[in-house]
Amino acid sequence: MQLTLKQIAEHVGGRVIGDPDAQVSGLGSLDNAVEGEIIFLANPKHADKVRSSRATAVIMPAGANCYGKNVIETKNPHLAFAKVLALFHDQTTHFKGVMEGAFVSPEAALGRDVTIYPGVYIAAGVTIGDRVVLHPGVVLYEGASLGDDVTLHANVSIRERCRIGSRVIIHNGTVIGSDGFGYVPEGKKHFKIPQVGIVVIEDDVEIGANSTVDRATLDITRIGRGTKIDNLVQIGHNCTIGEDSVIVSQVGISGSTTIGRNVTIGGQAALAGQLEVGDNIVLAGRAGVTNDMKEPGVFSGLPAIPHRDWLKSSIIFTKLPEMKNTVAKLEKRIAELEKQIASHGQQ
Amino acid sequence: MQLTLKQIAEHVGGRVIGDPDAQVSGLGSLDNAVEGEIIFLANPKHADKVRSSRATAVIMPAGANCYGKNVIETKNPHLAFAKVLALFHDQTTHFKGVMEGAFVSPEAALGRDVTIYPGVYIAAGVTIGDRVVLHPGVVLYEGASLGDDVTLHANVSIRERCRIGSRVIIHNGTVIGSDGFGYVPEGKKHFKIPQVGIVVIEDDVEIGANSTVDRATLDITRIGRGTKIDNLVQIGHNCTIGEDSVIVSQVGISGSTTIGRNVTIGGQAALAGQLEVGDNIVLAGRAGVTNDMKEPGVFSGLPAIPHRDWLKSSIIFTKLPEMKNTVAKLEKRIAELEKQIASHGQQ
Amino acid sequence: MQLTLKQIAEHVGGRVIGDPDAQVSGLGSLDNAVEGEIIFLANPKHADKVRSSRATAVIMPAGANCYGKNVIETKNPHLAFAKVLALFHDQTTHFKGVMEGAFVSPEAALGRDVTIYPGVYIAAGVTIGDRVVLHPGVVLYEGASLGDDVTLHANVSIRERCRIGSRVIIHNGTVIGSDGFGYVPEGKKHFKIPQVGIVVIEDDVEIGANSTVDRATLDITRIGRGTKIDNLVQIGHNCTIGEDSVIVSQVGISGSTTIGRNVTIGGQAALAGQLEVGDNIVLAGRAGVTNDMKEPGVFSGLPAIPHRDWLKSSIIFTKLPEMKNTVAKLEKRIAELEKQIASHGQQ
Repeated sequence: MQLTLKQIAEHVGGRVIGDPDAQVSGLGSLDNAVEGEIIFLANPKHADKVRSSRATAVIMPAGANCYGKNVIETKNPHLAFAKVLALFHDQTTHFKGVMEGAFVSPEAALGRDVTIYPGVYIAAGVTIGDRVVLHPGVVLYEGASLGDDVTLHANVSIRERCRIGSRVIIHNGTVIGSDGFGYVPEGKKHFKIPQVGIVVIEDDVEIGANSTVDRATLDITRIGRGTKIDNLVQIGHNCTIGEDSVIVSQVGISGSTTIGRNVTIGGQAALAGQLEVGDNIVLAGRAGVTNDMKEPGVFSGLPAIPHRDWLKSSIIFTKLPEMKNTVAKLEKRIAELEKQIASHGQQ
Repeated sequence: MQLTLKQIAEHVGGRVIGDPDAQVSGLGSLDNAVEGEIIFLANPKHADKVRSSRATAVIMPAGANCYGKNVIETKNPHLAFAKVLALFHDQTTHFKGVMEGAFVSPEAALGRDVTIYPGVYIAAGVTIGDRVVLHPGVVLYEGASLGDDVTLHANVSIRERCRIGSRVIIHNGTVIGSDGFGYVPEGKKHFKIPQVGIVVIEDDVEIGANSTVDRATLDITRIGRGTKIDNLVQIGHNCTIGEDSVIVSQVGISGSTTIGRNVTIGGQAALAGQLEVGDNIVLAGRAGVTNDMKEPGVFSGLPAIPHRDWLKSSIIFTKLPEMKNTVAKLEKRIAELEKQIASHGQQ
Repeated sequence: MQLTLKQIAEHVGGRVIGDPDAQVSGLGSLDNAVEGEIIFLANPKHADKVRSSRATAVIMPAGANCYGKNVIETKNPHLAFAKVLALFHDQTTHFKGVMEGAFVSPEAALGRDVTIYPGVYIAAGVTIGDRVVLHPGVVLYEGASLGDDVTLHANVSIRERCRIGSRVIIHNGTVIGSDGFGYVPEGKKHFKIPQVGIVVIEDDVEIGANSTVDRATLDITRIGRGTKIDNLVQIGHNCTIGEDSVIVSQVGISGSTTIGRNVTIGGQAALAGQLEVGDNIVLAGRAGVTNDMKEPGVFSGLPAIPHRDWLKSSIIFTKLPEMKNTVAKLEKRIAELEKQIASHGQQ
């Protein structure tokens, strides 16, 4: 695939500086681009890499030094870069139908133009939309449903009756709808609470590899439209995640916690159960939330506090031995003063 | 399935207040129950939801306000709820035998009334009890054994010679018996220590999705009877977990650590290797254990200390900048006092 | 398999004390060895277990008390033990070819003496070296390549075009080459950045179960030769891990971070993105790295500081309530002194 710089600029709503007819055959990285490729500069600190790059053109913000390269100027080079990448790497898969070695229940309903690889298992009562791609080892339990344009990578499980929206992508090994972790003590033993609810994954959600989203005890565990979840994330039963939120790798969210829209949760952060976290909140990596949070802001630490405060406390933490010494010295100086005052008094 | 309130009360050992012949067709949640459903109230703070619920009946502790609803009164509404849920959602699966597309070694021994889905692989020397259900993608390596009434969900692996007891449930993607993480330095390289021990999972254990339990170097990694393990948990080689313990999601337990009975380990907690943790200990979420623990109690923090102490220290942590200011001010006041005393002395 | 003590000693470069013709049939643990087995003593604190063991012989360092047992004396008993274990548990698998129920594209190229179990899926353009073992449920996407002597355990996925070196072992459920977690904000929505790079796993790497290594956005996510990675580890897109490093369970490494050689990263540690971590650095369990690190050393805490300093601060953390009390008392004593001084001045 070859595109002119002009074509690319139009696609991303940018402006060409240099040769609009320059041919571009793909995207390259700042470090490794070769002739014919286009690169992008988001961070001015790497500007000198533009100079030394062999790339044919560069996507950059207005006013940046292009070192004589062909340029597509745009307000948001990062977004433009992503759009050009999508343009060159059109993921349209040619539909292959139900391949030999896939197991499809006669009581399942499949949409048009699907691709079902060998080793897929589709139980009775499953419904699947159009243009769905199921990679090998995908298992759809009874009554699961998938919308249109869903891609499930190898070894993904969708458990009983869970519902997946349209344009959802789930990466390898992720499990949707395993039982929530619920037991009631009965003496020293643990009586299992049947987990008979479901999971609903709304449209345009993407979930990484080897993550787990537990089905509700009753009702629904819900992942809101457009939310993006990374690898190895745990979402407990009866959680609700709002729309357009972002959950980074290895986050753990305990049961029955509700999270708002446009929330960002950094890697390894954790939330206790039965909490409410409002819209637009940012939890830094490894934040630990143990109380409801309403006001937007950036929060860190366990228990989570405003990030700036946490930073200050963290720096002092590293100097606690010093502070302890200071306090000990003050104590001595005070004792000395007290002695002196006492002797003054006696005089 | 329809049951009368009286039948349900008998099943859970409770007492009916209201109409014993009221028909119940299932369980509902406080928020979403419809007519014909029974709900349960554990937390009095949600009592007003009982009033507005359309449920036909409610399971509650003696003395709670039932707002005129039919009631099953019981000491432990949560347990009663779980039992009624189990009653309505009887998980008995109708046995389907070895389905086409499953690979069963002629040298494996299967019990009666098993269900082996397509895409299951059973190696030579495997033994399987009665009424076992193996979902698609389950892989049993050579010599693995399963007791009666075991359910392994899709894509679970049981590695070579590992032994699973009866009534064990393992959710999707979990790996039992992968190699322990053991190497010996040989210069700058790492010489792999063969991991030739096994894992033993005792009766009535349940393990969530995408967890990993490593095989022992020699001997056995053991999960005790009745212990419940959540998703994405790591159990290192040669660990022993006692009976009826509870391990929440994303916990990591390093090699050769021994944990007692009725221990509860909160989410993301971690234990260093070669430790002993006694019975009835509770580790709060993200606790980090680096020393043996004998006395029961609740522990938090890294290193783990009694939870109350940790809470106090954590609160002060958030106020360290304040404390630092206080100390700095004291220092100035002392210097001022010292100056005054000195000038007094000189008078 | 039976070996004489003399044969074993020669294999590990050790010296026999006692009967060189004693027959050994396997390795035993200090606790459970039986007659005919050889044990090893690394930690002198367990020396009394040698006395009570029924083992036929013991591998130990020069000068240790052997309590009359046959001994192989060696500088590094742990390494010798590993080598003897490898000797007794030769993992050579007898090649079984492509078994019925495996799906191999006619456009894939397989080496000699491979073992491809039922339920494996091999896409077009895949190349596989000699003596490769692919367990059931392994999925190799288009264009993936494996070197010689690779073992992929059940349900491992190797995504599009990723390259695995020789003698690599990957345990069950691990995912190589799922999409990196990359989005650009477009209003409140998240525009997916196509992830079109690959993962390269170099020779002699071992990766545990249910870990995830994301493909690069462009270019390569690289795991260096000889590096060992445990279970449930997350490696972000465009990371580079140096040679002979060790990454323990549940570690998370954010995107574009570069890690040197012979680095050790303890369990649950985390590294922010776009960092550089030099050679020979040791991160303790749950360390959190937010800045570049160059100098070797052992580091702990979030943010990570030298381990000794962190230990000191951590101990003081547990005593913060005490320190707070001390400061409050000092404040009172100072106020008292100030009063006294003031009254002195007035006299």
